Order: sequence, then structure tokens, then C-alpha cells
Amino acid sequence: MIEKEKFNESELIKYIKKAGLETQIFNKNLIVESIGDDCAVIEDKNKILLSSDNITENIHFSLDLYDFDEIGGKSLLVNLSDIAAMGGIPRLFLMSLFIPPYLCTSDIKSLIKGVIKEAKKYEVSLIGGNISSASELSVSITIIGDCESAGIKRFCSKKGDAVYVSGEIGNSWMVFYLNSNKDYIFKTKTGLKSSDKKLITDFINKYKLPKPRINLGRKLYTKNLAGSLTDISDGIYKDIFNVAGEGCGCRINVEDIPVNEELKQIAGILNIENYIDDIISFGEDYELLWTFDRGYTRSEIAELKGSCGTNIKKIGFIDDNSAKLTLIKGGKVFMPEDHTFRHL
Amino acid sequence: MIEKEKFNESELIKYIKKAGLETQIFNKNLIVESIGDDCAVIEDKNKILLSSDNITENIHFSLDLYDFDEIGGKSLLVNLSDIAAMGGIPRLFLMSLFIPPYLCTSDIKSLIKGVIKEAKKYEVSLIGGNISSASELSVSITIIGDCESAGIKRFCSKKGDAVYVSGEIGNSWMVFYLNSNKDYIFKTKTGLKSSDKKLITDFINKYKLPKPRINLGRKLYTKNLAGSLTDISDGIYKDIFNVAGEGCGCRINVEDIPVNEELKQIAGILNIENYIDDIISFGEDYELLWTFDRGYTRSEIAELKGSCGTNIKKIGFIDDNSAKLTLIKGGKVFMPEDHTFRHL
Repeated sequence: MIEKEKFNESELIKYIKKAGLETQIFNKNLIVESIGDDCAVIEDKNKILLSSDNITENIHFSLDLYDFDEIGGKSLLVNLSDIAAMGGIPRLFLMSLFIPPYLCTSDIKSLIKGVIKEAKKYEVSLIGGNISSASELSVSITIIGDCESAGIKRFCSKKGDAVYVSGEIGNSWMVFYLNSNKDYIFKTKTGLKSSDKKLITDFINKYKLPKPRINLGRKLYTKNLAGSLTDISDGIYKDIFNVAGEGCGCRINVEDIPVNEELKQIAGILNIENYIDDIISFGEDYELLWTFDRGYTRSEIAELKGSCGTNIKKIGFIDDNSAKLTLIKGGKVFMPEDHTFRHL
Repeated sequence: MIEKEKFNESELIKYIKKAGLETQIFNKNLIVESIGDDCAVIEDKNKILLSSDNITENIHFSLDLYDFDEIGGKSLLVNLSDIAAMGGIPRLFLMSLFIPPYLCTSDIKSLIKGVIKEAKKYEVSLIGGNISSASELSVSITIIGDCESAGIKRFCSKKGDAVYVSGEIGNSWMVFYLNSNKDYIFKTKTGLKSSDKKLITDFINKYKLPKPRINLGRKLYTKNLAGSLTDISDGIYKDIFNVAGEGCGCRINVEDIPVNEELKQIAGILNIENYIDDIISFGEDYELLWTFDRGYTRSEIAELKGSCGTNIKKIGFIDDNSAKLTLIKGGKVFMPEDHTFRHL
């Protein structure tokens, strides 16, 4: 207990305070007091959305895949996704750093820079937090957003509602898969063309970090185009039950799940079969998953696509098969296998 | 990454949700949505105080000293202290659990019970959070309080202000010291009377957990009796600079620092000399430390004592010796030694 800190705490606090100040140009009207006192002080006449999420070494990231700035970035992005999943506007955040002894000050500063980079991009302000020693690296963030009402809830769909997802599902799984097998892919496996290797490396770099769908969530809220909404953090297979209402289940056409073309290409190159099984149960995509009481019109689809900068796709509908997900493939009911942890 | 959880996550979430509901009878008017959705939703027309603090195994507690319910309790108490240190009212909290593989479900439930026990005592409501696997136990809490204004700030005192503390300083240090040396005290050391052993055991049990001074902080705020206020988490030696204003230092009469009579008795029994050196630099007492532009009148002292249920003590005054703490003992300037980690 009360171990001497392995890093210079007061220097780091100064660094974080300065970095936080740079983000406080956003949401100035909400911030009364920020970093430096026992508490941050805010005021907000809207409904306030609050969520905490953390990313921890070897659970949510590995140091061989992510640079420190990317770890920082990811820690904020997964939290922003929770605000998107309510249809709210992210505003402020508190950041708790758990710092292991093998991190040097420049690593920590790099991590903080990664947080601040995304904070500026999404116009959210760092207003407080804390730092402490730990045996492994973890970043725990409490995100504060706001909304005119309580936002779009989970568990509110009913029989017949259409089920939609944003973006592409499975990119995060493929990044994990490629990184887990990188020694085999890049060292052991022969006959891989250099263009294939480039495709793989580019894929990893492109999809390492999630893209919180703030604008889409906001549009769903303001245009009243979702009955129930969540983000996909644990995989469609599990998260679908976060939008299904009481007594409801869901029927999904697996072939309608939007999958990245490069992912398919890489799966072909590496002979990965039945990857759809992994994709639906892996999670970490942070795409939105929602229901609406009818299919959208063309103009509604165009409006939503325009605001989120990516595709949206109807993948199935809510039925009254209580707490059951029915997956359809080639017109038949399909049972996925759990081989998330398979290796080449 | 994406390790299978060592515990049943959905069972635990249900357990936490039920426990949280029990605490939501308090502050009902602030809670719009609580545990279960992507975010909790609150509304508060007052200024909102926010702070995050965590306690981590082997840094802030050891499993040989604390039961799981005490760890849970402590995690909330240290956060409540941050609201006390602003003069605010604690209202709501988010709890993030980092759960190592060696914890079984009953340990985790016991920890949660400890959190809920203190939550009910201080009438604060659990409204959200998250759980994740980790290699060591940690509880990270974001506390949300409110106040009619921004509360009582740090760094606001000026030359001549009186410096006060609440309660007793050093109990947390003595608990740490006794636990660190318990093998020696209870096994190796001979000649210790059974009444001495009882005194030591009772002391540990009595002072293991801090007492956040919510009522005192609140009274200081409402009666306008503090110019600058903080809580003692890092020791007077360091925290004094959180109340000293710009260009200010502080002069403290070490003999005026309130020390527990049993602590003095135990120090005598175990021949611990110069314990004041440790007490002022150890921290973890979570007593309040504040300044006021004059000494209190008798009736003010009586009113403050009445509201916090413990003593308050003037220990010195602010001077213009910039960023310097001058300690006085027996009328002379005194230099403490750092022997926090000494062993018997």
C-alpha cells in the first residue's frame, strides 16, 4: 500500500491539465470548474447522459498491436460510442489512468496525446480524473453527454420491427484474428504475395480503432427514426437482446450482415471458412444496432447514410420468439459455432 | 484480447442492478434512467460536482487487511470525501469493477454489498458502471454530487488565514504500520500483554475505513466558514499546498496536529519514535483541511463540531513564504524525516 509512484505524479497532472485545457474550448458553457480541484463542476439544463467504460491491457488491447496514442484514442472512442447509442451529444469526460511500472513518462504522454487527439476531433472536453499505479495498463473513462430527453432506450422493440446496423460488422474481429496469427501469416506461411501482405497490414491499421457513430445516433434521435438503439460492443449475437423488447426475439438474415470487401478477400487468401460465426459473436465493432417499426423509405436511408458517412443495412426483424435469435443462411436456419479463438 | 470472463457477467449485472435499485430511493428526482442502458440519464438544475477515484490492490489496500465488503466500502468512501472537500452533497455514482481471476462470485458480491451498505448510509445512488476482467482487483468510482454554486475551491487562502483540520490525523498511517508489521507484533515480539494486543487489533478494525466529512464540508459551505478547502488524501505535508493561495506558504505547529490517544499509546508500547514525521506525509486520512480568514469564535467551533460529530483543530496559519511549509515543534523549526516505510 501507498507504494511510491513509479512516475512523477505532479508533472503528469500538470501535463494532463494543460492537455485538458486545450479541449475545454468546446462546451465552455457547461464547464464551471475543471481539472485541479477535488471535483470538476459542471452545469447542464438538458438531460445528462453518463457512462463509464474502461480498456485494459490483454483484455481489450495488446501492446504488440496498439501504440500508446492508439490505446488512449481507443479508450475515449469506446466511451463516445455509448453516447451515440443513446442519440446524445458527447460533451465532457473524466479519465482515470492505471499506470504499470514498465511505462515510462513518454509512453504515458503519448497515450494522453492519443486521448486528446480524439477529444478534439469529437469536440469533447477533459475535465478531471485521476492517476494511480497498477500492475497493468488500464484507462477508465466516464463520459458525460447530453440530450433534450432521456434519448433512445434499449429493450423497446416489438414484433415486426425492422432491425438495422451501421457500417460493417467484423472488422474488429479480423484485426484481432490477424494480429493473433501474425507470426504464422508473416513468417511461417509461404506463398503469400507481397500485395496480400500489404492488404493485411493496411487492413489492421485501418480498422484498429472504432468509429463511434455519434452523428448517426443523433440523426436517429432528432428524426425519430429508431424505436430501440444500442451499440455493438459484445457482438450482434448478444447485443441483439439489448434492443429486443419483452417477449421478443429476432430473426436475422446472416447474408445481409454488411461485411467489408477486403475482409472477405483476406479470408479467401488465408482460407478462413465460416468467419461469419466469429463476426456475429466477437463484438468490439461499436457500430450501432437499432430497430424501427417499419422499413425506411429511400429518402430516409439517404438522409441517415449522409449523416453517418457510412452504410446502413436492414439485417432482419423482431419476432415473438422470446429471447431467441434465429439466424437464416441460404433460406435455412443456421447455427453458428464458437471458434473465436481458433488459430491458423 | 476478448478473454472469456472468469465470472458470469450477466448474473453479476443483474445482481448489481438489483443492488443499485435499492439505493435509488435516494435522489429519485435526479435519476431519469439508471443501470441497464448504454448510459445512465440524470437531470440536475444545481451545479454538478464530478470526481473519479479508484482503489487498487497492493496500492490502496491489501487483501490480508481488508475483507471484500470493506474494499467495496472504502472505494465509495474515498470518493464521497471529494464531494465533502467541495462542500457539496453526494448524490449518485458509477462503479467500474476490475475483477481478477482469483476472485469468486461470492467475493464480488460481498464487495458490492460493502459498496451498497455505505451508499445507503450516505444516501447516494448507484446508477451505472461496468465490469471487466483484470489481473488485479480495482474499483473505480465516479461520484456525482451537487451544490448551489461551484463549492469551496482549493488554492484560495491568503497570508494570515487560519488553517484547520477535522478529526484526527495519522490513524490510517498507524493501521498501515500495524498491518505491515503484524507478524513481528503478534508472533515475534515477546512481552506484549494481551490487553496491548487487543488495543492494537481494535485500533486496526476501528480505523480501517475513512469517514468522509460530508456534513462538515456542507456546514463550511452553507455558513461561509472556509476560504479554501480540500481533503487529506496525500498527507498534510503535500495537501497543504492545495489550500495555499498563490505566493503563499504555511506555518504549522506540529504539536497542534490532532493525534488519536490510542495511537499515542500504541506508539509507546511499540517504541515508535517520531511518528509525527510519518503521520504528516502518509495521507489516506480523508479528513478535511481548510483555511479561514480569521480564527473561529467559540460558537462557530461548537456549531462545526456538532455537525461533523468530531473535533476540529486550528493547526497553523498561511504565510507569504511561497510554496514552503514551515513546521514548528517546541517553538523551533522542525524537519521531518521520510521513514514511512520503516519496519520494526
